[in-house]
Amino acid sequence: MTNNINTATSTSIKNRCMRLRSVPNGKIVKSDLELTEEPIPSIAADDENSGYHVIVKNTMASIDPTHRIWMNAKKDQYMDGVALGDIMRAITVGIITESRNIDWPVGTKVVGFGGICDYYVGIPEVTIVEKCACNTNNEISPTLELSYGGFVIGLTAWHGVNKILQPGSSGGGGDSNNEVVVISGGAGAVGSIAGQLSKTKGVTVIGIAGGKEKCLFMTETLGYDYAIDYKSDEYTISDKLKEYAPDGITGYFDNVGGTVTEAVLANARNYMKMAICGSISEYDDEWQGIKNFNMILMRRISIQGFVCTDHLDELSDARKDLYQLKKEGRLIFREDIREGIENYTEVVNLLFTGGNKGKLLLKINEQ
Amino acid sequence: MTNNINTATSTSIKNRCMRLRSVPNGKIVKSDLELTEEPIPSIAADDENSGYHVIVKNTMASIDPTHRIWMNAKKDQYMDGVALGDIMRAITVGIITESRNIDWPVGTKVVGFGGICDYYVGIPEVTIVEKCACNTNNEISPTLELSYGGFVIGLTAWHGVNKILQPGSSGGGGDSNNEVVVISGGAGAVGSIAGQLSKTKGVTVIGIAGGKEKCLFMTETLGYDYAIDYKSDEYTISDKLKEYAPDGITGYFDNVGGTVTEAVLANARNYMKMAICGSISEYDDEWQGIKNFNMILMRRISIQGFVCTDHLDELSDARKDLYQLKKEGRLIFREDIREGIENYTEVVNLLFTGGNKGKLLLKINEQ
Repeated sequence: MTNNINTATSTSIKNRCMRLRSVPNGKIVKSDLELTEEPIPSIAADDENSGYHVIVKNTMASIDPTHRIWMNAKKDQYMDGVALGDIMRAITVGIITESRNIDWPVGTKVVGFGGICDYYVGIPEVTIVEKCACNTNNEISPTLELSYGGFVIGLTAWHGVNKILQPGSSGGGGDSNNEVVVISGGAGAVGSIAGQLSKTKGVTVIGIAGGKEKCLFMTETLGYDYAIDYKSDEYTISDKLKEYAPDGITGYFDNVGGTVTEAVLANARNYMKMAICGSISEYDDEWQGIKNFNMILMRRISIQGFVCTDHLDELSDARKDLYQLKKEGRLIFREDIREGIENYTEVVNLLFTGGNKGKLLLKINEQ
Repeated sequence: MTNNINTATSTSIKNRCMRLRSVPNGKIVKSDLELTEEPIPSIAADDENSGYHVIVKNTMASIDPTHRIWMNAKKDQYMDGVALGDIMRAITVGIITESRNIDWPVGTKVVGFGGICDYYVGIPEVTIVEKCACNTNNEISPTLELSYGGFVIGLTAWHGVNKILQPGSSGGGGDSNNEVVVISGGAGAVGSIAGQLSKTKGVTVIGIAGGKEKCLFMTETLGYDYAIDYKSDEYTISDKLKEYAPDGITGYFDNVGGTVTEAVLANARNYMKMAICGSISEYDDEWQGIKNFNMILMRRISIQGFVCTDHLDELSDARKDLYQLKKEGRLIFREDIREGIENYTEVVNLLFTGGNKGKLLLKINEQ
């Protein structure tokens, strides 16, 4: 993806672009990125793509833990990282401002890999993933596709729970008695949906998150049975898991990895199923890994790592389920909207300090 | 399991028993075990079990890496460990020397959890698993059920390859092009069968083992495509894997864990399947674990830990396949028979230094 198209008509410098300048060393710092002002891209009539590509103005960006992974192109990852000098990748909602494409007219709100910038050249069905549902229904939030209705958040939670863990049916390798599902990052955007989906299957749900407020949110608002504060000095995660799941854990939805995952492995019931969609504790360059890896053998655990983009064919099924639950008031979802493209670094770091409360979004421009 | 039954008739002291005295601290040392002389167990006519239990004289014991796990009853494991003071657990072949059970007469050769001792009280279909095939066919080796025909060795390899990795069909998550299966412990008892079974499916097989001799054995005798010596100073495992599997590994049969597994994870193709039946590098009390655990997410890897005793219903299918391959000369299997119950400690340690050449067995008594 390149946002460097310059045409004869694009001379006005109004496109703010957050470009990656260096690979972060641990925490992301301001100097790892640079906010530049560049010409707004345009598509001239004589451009070979003039009837296909469109120009999109970003309104809202989804800020996700994977941004930290993307910032290190040299590291093994599930898709190409962002090269030094390129605009920081992000999934965004935006509005088409220039188009000769009759299927994608000016004014259409779209979801795509827009990046942290004001304007980008969108390629329908390539970098533009889909049209927003709010185009045809004013009652639908313009951020729906970045939150529980999106492939990054909603589909990830839905696939992990319904296709991998399958609580309440074959969850726990055929041992469906007193199933206990644990969600790490249980108050987060993906985790909070995964926990609530598991709850609808009638199993016990334990959420793990950092801080008293998030723990209260999990038990009082999301309806989890138990909450464990991984930052607490009063107990260990493993002791609490032993207390809440004395017969062992049957399903584990993992967003974080590291010591939290070690504690879950130490308390696994035989044949525990584990879905890994994130590993936020391991996104720095120093990897800690898992010390008790051999519990996978001892407890005959099955593990599936997965990435939402592999399962886009399930998106409509996932949405159907999630919209229905939301309509019935059985799905609570919070958004945490921050403002200003210039604040990108501070905002993305909230994910790693646990400072956000709900799905983190960055408002770049007005609707 | 107890071997402590004393009856009025068992006064002769001729039963040598290797009893666990302390949990090994790292390497197993002589003083962790004690060879005692005890009364030979017997079953008196008025014993309530006299028509059911039998007395078995052990002839050969299977020496397996799991012995080290069993020696630490306090550690999480897949079955109860051996308590301090108890006879060391081992699967053995033995011959029934006393019986009032018409289905299990004196002279029958049996496979069971006999332990490292001369005689034990066997409970048919509980501690005695089955009758040896050599009872009815003189051409069959009396050690068959401890080697490629047994549930610990043959079934483990067969289940891991045929039920989990499934090379040549859905192996590699649907990506069946140029499949590459890696076997750690590839010259060992289980690994050598797993590698040969994978070879029959037409995929590329890379074996990892320690030392030049084992590497030659894998390529020249077992028919592997490539061998990697994990003890070599001339290259790293990861560099060699990159060279032999430039498009990534699609299936991994893991016997060892630790740094070998890290190297395989670093070279996984998307959707790699991984079967874990052993973790021999982690059987000491200090666990090293896996640093690049997050490759499971990045490469969308699926992992299944498994233990042979969960899959005894597949034993006859596994044997059918393995016997046929052996008959056709397509399955090579080596045994390494050591002698003398008093040498148990030195013999079991061969597994951890890589000193054995083939399935390790300990002869306790003559047939």
